Amino acid sequence: MDINLTSKHVYGRLLLIASILLLTIVSRAQSPNAPNIIVFIVDDMGWLDTSVPFAGSVTANNKKYHTPNMERLAKEGMIFTDAYAAPVCTPSRVSLMTGMNVAHHHVTNWTHPLKNTVADAKNPPYDYADWNINGFSPIAGIEKTVHATALPQLLKAAGYFTIHVGKAHWGAQGTPGANPYNLGFIVNVAGHAAGHPQSYLSEDNYGNIPGSKVAAQAVPDLEEYYQTGTFLTEALTREALKSLEYPVAKKQPFFLHFAHYAVHTPLMADVRYFQKYLDRGLDSAEAKYASLIEGMDKSLGDVIDFIEQKGIKNNTVIFFLSDNGGLSLPPRGDKPLTHNAPLKAGKGSVYEGGIRIPFIVSYPKLVKKGQVSHTPIIIEDLFPTLLDITGMKNYKTIQKIDGRSLVPQLKEPSLADTSRILLWHYPNYWRPSNFPGTNYHSALRQHNWKLVYNQQTRNAELYDLSTDIGEQKDLSTIYPHKTKELVALLGKLLKAYNAPMPKDKVSGKPLPYPADAE
Amino acid sequence: MDINLTSKHVYGRLLLIASILLLTIVSRAQSPNAPNIIVFIVDDMGWLDTSVPFAGSVTANNKKYHTPNMERLAKEGMIFTDAYAAPVCTPSRVSLMTGMNVAHHHVTNWTHPLKNTVADAKNPPYDYADWNINGFSPIAGIEKTVHATALPQLLKAAGYFTIHVGKAHWGAQGTPGANPYNLGFIVNVAGHAAGHPQSYLSEDNYGNIPGSKVAAQAVPDLEEYYQTGTFLTEALTREALKSLEYPVAKKQPFFLHFAHYAVHTPLMADVRYFQKYLDRGLDSAEAKYASLIEGMDKSLGDVIDFIEQKGIKNNTVIFFLSDNGGLSLPPRGDKPLTHNAPLKAGKGSVYEGGIRIPFIVSYPKLVKKGQVSHTPIIIEDLFPTLLDITGMKNYKTIQKIDGRSLVPQLKEPSLADTSRILLWHYPNYWRPSNFPGTNYHSALRQHNWKLVYNQQTRNAELYDLSTDIGEQKDLSTIYPHKTKELVALLGKLLKAYNAPMPKDKVSGKPLPYPADAE
Repeated sequence: MDINLTSKHVYGRLLLIASILLLTIVSRAQSPNAPNIIVFIVDDMGWLDTSVPFAGSVTANNKKYHTPNMERLAKEGMIFTDAYAAPVCTPSRVSLMTGMNVAHHHVTNWTHPLKNTVADAKNPPYDYADWNINGFSPIAGIEKTVHATALPQLLKAAGYFTIHVGKAHWGAQGTPGANPYNLGFIVNVAGHAAGHPQSYLSEDNYGNIPGSKVAAQAVPDLEEYYQTGTFLTEALTREALKSLEYPVAKKQPFFLHFAHYAVHTPLMADVRYFQKYLDRGLDSAEAKYASLIEGMDKSLGDVIDFIEQKGIKNNTVIFFLSDNGGLSLPPRGDKPLTHNAPLKAGKGSVYEGGIRIPFIVSYPKLVKKGQVSHTPIIIEDLFPTLLDITGMKNYKTIQKIDGRSLVPQLKEPSLADTSRILLWHYPNYWRPSNFPGTNYHSALRQHNWKLVYNQQTRNAELYDLSTDIGEQKDLSTIYPHKTKELVALLGKLLKAYNAPMPKDKVSGKPLPYPADAE
Repeated sequence: MDINLTSKHVYGRLLLIASILLLTIVSRAQSPNAPNIIVFIVDDMGWLDTSVPFAGSVTANNKKYHTPNMERLAKEGMIFTDAYAAPVCTPSRVSLMTGMNVAHHHVTNWTHPLKNTVADAKNPPYDYADWNINGFSPIAGIEKTVHATALPQLLKAAGYFTIHVGKAHWGAQGTPGANPYNLGFIVNVAGHAAGHPQSYLSEDNYGNIPGSKVAAQAVPDLEEYYQTGTFLTEALTREALKSLEYPVAKKQPFFLHFAHYAVHTPLMADVRYFQKYLDRGLDSAEAKYASLIEGMDKSLGDVIDFIEQKGIKNNTVIFFLSDNGGLSLPPRGDKPLTHNAPLKAGKGSVYEGGIRIPFIVSYPKLVKKGQVSHTPIIIEDLFPTLLDITGMKNYKTIQKIDGRSLVPQLKEPSLADTSRILLWHYPNYWRPSNFPGTNYHSALRQHNWKLVYNQQTRNAELYDLSTDIGEQKDLSTIYPHKTKELVALLGKLLKAYNAPMPKDKVSGKPLPYPADAE
């Protein structure tokens, strides 16, 4: 215990020193024109789980879901049709906080709330990859974490009032990453080590019912709403808006990271909208999901209303996104693997259904109304984009940034970069199933080419997304040279990042990187 | 449920409006010289549970406890030997937040974490008084709460960075007072509706062990310390110091309300100090208590070190106090009713052992070193004192303030006010025992006179504290006129405040105010 105390003490000192350095080194963006920034991030929402037609034409999903405020935001700004995240939650969230690709930060799977606990499914066919199972850490020397400079640390140092509301899930209990304050957030409401809510209901105290069993997923900090009939999505919205009052009144630029627990399981009915979807003929599970979606959309509307009422809309950037594709397994209703149609598969997969996300940007000062960009972008792009938007230059980060600023695309949506490579890496065992594209997969996208690589079989598939968004027609035998080129590139990238790989149970050695196997 | 949603919505709007009004109405104290303010408040610590000799001469308790940092603070500033709080926790804390006397704010007992739940003991001889069982509320119209302007709301509006760390206990779950953010705190760590920690141990996750039963007292927000061997007192200290980095770097004046859960039950050993007290021959319970005291004192030392290291000591005011007298019943060891000797009784009582508290002020700019004031003061004095120190004038509060600024005494400790009346009112049923001076008691102090009034028997006792600090010799029959005068005054004050009284079980009527009964 003494050792722990001492090392914690050292960590504390290091954190203080790091904070001071940040506050002194970073160039200050604070100016009357520094824009306010809102990142509105939804959990597990599929690309088409909205009435906004991200696919260009209106799909069945677009008709099923009612999201008038996403439509409103899209009309006021720009949608990105080809925006991506990682196939599961924590990897995406760490990429957003660090600007690093998943293969680089090594938090390749969602983190278990308990320290040193692998979240991969039990009894895997391979030994667990050496991934950062404790998540992100703003402090060096914490075992099995990626140590990096967090986005809000930089924004806070630059004069931003930084707020986190909702799901955090950046690091395990017993590590600094469990606490949003350590990432540079001045305010934290309801964020901790868990990745989903124990309950959405105030009737359940959001999972804190005295006498029931303690769950790591019980949502903290919302006692004032217990037993008031306030759905979690609504309670978080009120907290978010309350937390904005202070910086708005002080005219201090703010960064609000508003991370809804919705629409992650447990699927629970938001009663404000549930009956409507039952009346439309949805089964109970799907009606619950649709009600979670619309409750989340109402929250977005409240946020937009707020910045309008405060007269700060012109100087406020809103990024709307999800953290991975939509779940397409039970407890979702209807047939598994259909929920993200025409995309293939869903959450957990490197096929489009698992990684393509809704993405909208509104910023009246910079972005024209009703724009559409087809540029492929990925969640780590938010890090340099936000800093670019604030005008910060020469900021120092521990890590090398993989993301690219979207400001050029925001100014001119038709800007294309056909050479850029997007990378996904999932050396993990999600669940014992044949769910396509999940366990032990990597993927690349370059322009319209999509490579899907199976680490286990070493098989590579190639798709042309311009004609086959559903990834139905594997072109690898038709374009063997292109396939080989992309496999080699994938191997090179993973090797350069020293990306973790599943390990052979007999030899204990990591599986070879792509191309090296041949 | 709709009604609740609507009313909650209205409350939210009212809170926003109230915040805006505060931000615009209040005169701004923010200036380069606005002092930083630290209120360091300990829970359930008795007057003499320290090596600082508050009684003038060194008592047995002073020898038993080791508090070098309290000694250091006392040497650097001023001690108040005759400082008071309410006999139990929430009433004191609400007085601090509102500047109101307990008889005025009607939160006469500790609040239960659950809404609309009386915390008084079961099967009382009288029906429960109509006290504000839901505690404090910054929003009007919340049932069974006192609606007032909270101190941090004013300080925040005046440009202070306001921080709460530790025990809150201002309002019940399901009401706005449960959440320190609603009281004007920008940062809240670990404060909620509960009045004590479920556990001090990181090995217990401070009460959040998965699989165990949910307790309203499980401490929130400290997941990063789970299973790290960090005692609660230490974890809170690190959080408090981390939260100060930002305003210190920004040169923004701060208000830190650092409210330790220590030394409240459950008595648990702070292993850093426990063995030392066992070795000195203390029984296990008392050694635990002494270790909690010394752990708290170490925290105070860390805070003082911090402001020294930051070079802000000259411009920082520290108030050290407890929220009521020391517990003197099991689970404390040794003989009940002895722990606060030479004072009578302990926590829960209006005798000196229940209400007299350690109180130290350090403020190099204003307060000379090593001063002692014998002026009787009471916890609600902190409200106007803090605002006076910041230089704020003409601030608006919903409530009329009962406390008085201590700035004159801080400048000149010998200043005496022999006419001032201090008032205690406890119309509650603490526990079924003959513990002296608790259930259904009120009290007054004027200069050296102390009146103790039993609401149930209507008996009044009179003590001269200048010769009888232990309240052993009742002088009421020797000074019947003085006694009658003070009883009449007590009745007048309680009537003016419309103070709640216990109610007759048959008639349902409140017991008469003192003097009215005759």
